[in-house]
Amino acid sequence: MDERIHEHAAVLVNWSARVSEGDNVVVSVDEGAHDLAVAVAAELGDVGANMSVQYDSSEVERAYTKAHDGEFEESTHELALYEESTHELALYEESDVMLRLGGGRNTSADADVPPTKRQAAMQANQNVREAVMDTDWVSTVHPTRSLAQQAGMAYEEYQDFVYDAVLRDWEELADQMAKMKEILDAGSEVRLVKEDTDITMSIEGRTAVNSAASVAYDSHNLPSGEVFTAPYGTEGEVFFDVPMTLRGTRVQNVHLTFEDGEVVDYSADAGEAVLGEILDTDEGARRLGELGIGMNRGIDRFTDSILFDEKMGDTVHMAVGRAYDANLPEGESGNDSAVHVDMITDVSEDSRMEVDGEVVQRNGVFRWEDGFEG
Amino acid sequence: MDERIHEHAAVLVNWSARVSEGDNVVVSVDEGAHDLAVAVAAELGDVGANMSVQYDSSEVERAYTKAHDGEFEESTHELALYEESTHELALYEESDVMLRLGGGRNTSADADVPPTKRQAAMQANQNVREAVMDTDWVSTVHPTRSLAQQAGMAYEEYQDFVYDAVLRDWEELADQMAKMKEILDAGSEVRLVKEDTDITMSIEGRTAVNSAASVAYDSHNLPSGEVFTAPYGTEGEVFFDVPMTLRGTRVQNVHLTFEDGEVVDYSADAGEAVLGEILDTDEGARRLGELGIGMNRGIDRFTDSILFDEKMGDTVHMAVGRAYDANLPEGESGNDSAVHVDMITDVSEDSRMEVDGEVVQRNGVFRWEDGFEG
Repeated sequence: MDERIHEHAAVLVNWSARVSEGDNVVVSVDEGAHDLAVAVAAELGDVGANMSVQYDSSEVERAYTKAHDGEFEESTHELALYEESTHELALYEESDVMLRLGGGRNTSADADVPPTKRQAAMQANQNVREAVMDTDWVSTVHPTRSLAQQAGMAYEEYQDFVYDAVLRDWEELADQMAKMKEILDAGSEVRLVKEDTDITMSIEGRTAVNSAASVAYDSHNLPSGEVFTAPYGTEGEVFFDVPMTLRGTRVQNVHLTFEDGEVVDYSADAGEAVLGEILDTDEGARRLGELGIGMNRGIDRFTDSILFDEKMGDTVHMAVGRAYDANLPEGESGNDSAVHVDMITDVSEDSRMEVDGEVVQRNGVFRWEDGFEG
Repeated sequence: MDERIHEHAAVLVNWSARVSEGDNVVVSVDEGAHDLAVAVAAELGDVGANMSVQYDSSEVERAYTKAHDGEFEESTHELALYEESTHELALYEESDVMLRLGGGRNTSADADVPPTKRQAAMQANQNVREAVMDTDWVSTVHPTRSLAQQAGMAYEEYQDFVYDAVLRDWEELADQMAKMKEILDAGSEVRLVKEDTDITMSIEGRTAVNSAASVAYDSHNLPSGEVFTAPYGTEGEVFFDVPMTLRGTRVQNVHLTFEDGEVVDYSADAGEAVLGEILDTDEGARRLGELGIGMNRGIDRFTDSILFDEKMGDTVHMAVGRAYDANLPEGESGNDSAVHVDMITDVSEDSRMEVDGEVVQRNGVFRWEDGFEG
């Protein structure tokens, strides 16, 4: 086995999830992530954690969802026939850690599931998702040929890309990101200006997360390398020029217009129907749940995978849907939704980000960096 | 996909497990059983059951168990460092049905796990196994190349073998087996005589199971086709001439000698060490948990898989270890153990089985069949 798979597993279990002896750990394994699961199991055995392994297969989920006659009530946005999976809920309620090992064999594996059924299934699963988010969960990805294809890369080239992004000096990157967190924590309002974009949002009272790929930093992705917060009261328009694949469909050049914190108008050059599906999931799906600033310059290209793309330096992303509790004052709840969908905009040219009227990033260069032109 | 995979899934979900709308179902998927999992998911969706999918990989388990430093105390036969997996326990305690889809990629995948660690891991997992057995569980197998190899058969030949065994008229077979159940339920003592074998056991007060591949018959294997009970007070010697693979090791020509219900002497021409490992697991591992009479003449050859071999017509099998509750009077507990290991003897020639001194099967022919020579 490629030695980097073992290194990946060690970073995941020890740096990212901080697994301890006796922890109840769920490992959720995508169809193509078997080798990483083997390496993770060895790390968990070594630590002395308790392991339960779930099979996270898009093909199995697709077959189930397509066959289910769960009706979706357009009027109430509620499902009629799906029941709650109380057994899976019990599993996660008793778990300390959940490790999601992504890496499928076909990124379009569930492309033909009718949108209403997809939404009904997601809503039926919401309690389980919330129980997962109450654990020290970490999401990572094992390089598969399918993901290499999605990225437009050769298989070995893609493996190098993934391991370069994952096997980093995370403590040093955390120091860099702390500077951005400091600015956001002190600020009240963020404004982003670029082509077709002039958008303002409040961040008053919210706490930014220094996402250093570890639950110790309230960071749940490996790789990571972003600073994010939970905005509200969004106004204005924004253009997301980085293409992406959502639910198996290519989505390109998304324009959103916000009034009073909500999306009131949207368009896309490609995938507009899927975009509409997402925004129609529930009330919270039309509000922002996240503003993120990509700061991982180790990720050197877009690969059509949100896990990597949103962390890339010189990008900013916003997610419609659910906000993360880590950004909120203790006990306060943020935007709630069954979805959390990130969209990315390139800020490397002709852009500026202001916090309380002061420019903090121009054309991708941060205020504290060489070459910054305020 | 081969249409027989869908038929297999339909038999499993509808005939075997009798899954109903709203049931909490765990599907446990072996490494090579993906296609059957997809077909089963479609059946579960169609029924409207709730599905949680576990990944049952020998390679993942091996990595975990080898890396774990769980010491095994020889003196107490107890493990020191393994803790209970309370999260997986919670999953099964909330489950109505568990469907185990066997079908690995290497039947020797865990051959190099040290025996003491294997035993410690099994004991640590005993509560979970008990919770599984409290569900309407069914174990079946998806034909893989690894299993074809184990059986000494070509892949397509093996697929035909499996589907011929699984896709049967189960109601008709159940009628045949009811005759044998009637004899055992009325009887007190069973004696089996053949080459190197003269063994007697009590079955007084025990109830035989007509194993017709459905939980409605207290039968948990698909395929099935055996009548089994839980004997006790075993005396004498028995020779198991059907070869088998236990824990990745070929075991051949096992002789066991019983006194006062316990194995007091054992030998094997091959695999004697593994046999000893099994018998040393715990106290109950030296007593019989099962006597079974294979009655599925649709299974026409040995394939080195206990699921099929023990059901074959003209064979009798006995298991050391755990007894099934279905054979016991309500509230009574039978032989308890962390293991349940079946061994098979060919009764097609020079053999007779007696119940209370009356011959009920000679040379494989039952009392009620043409050609029976009392």
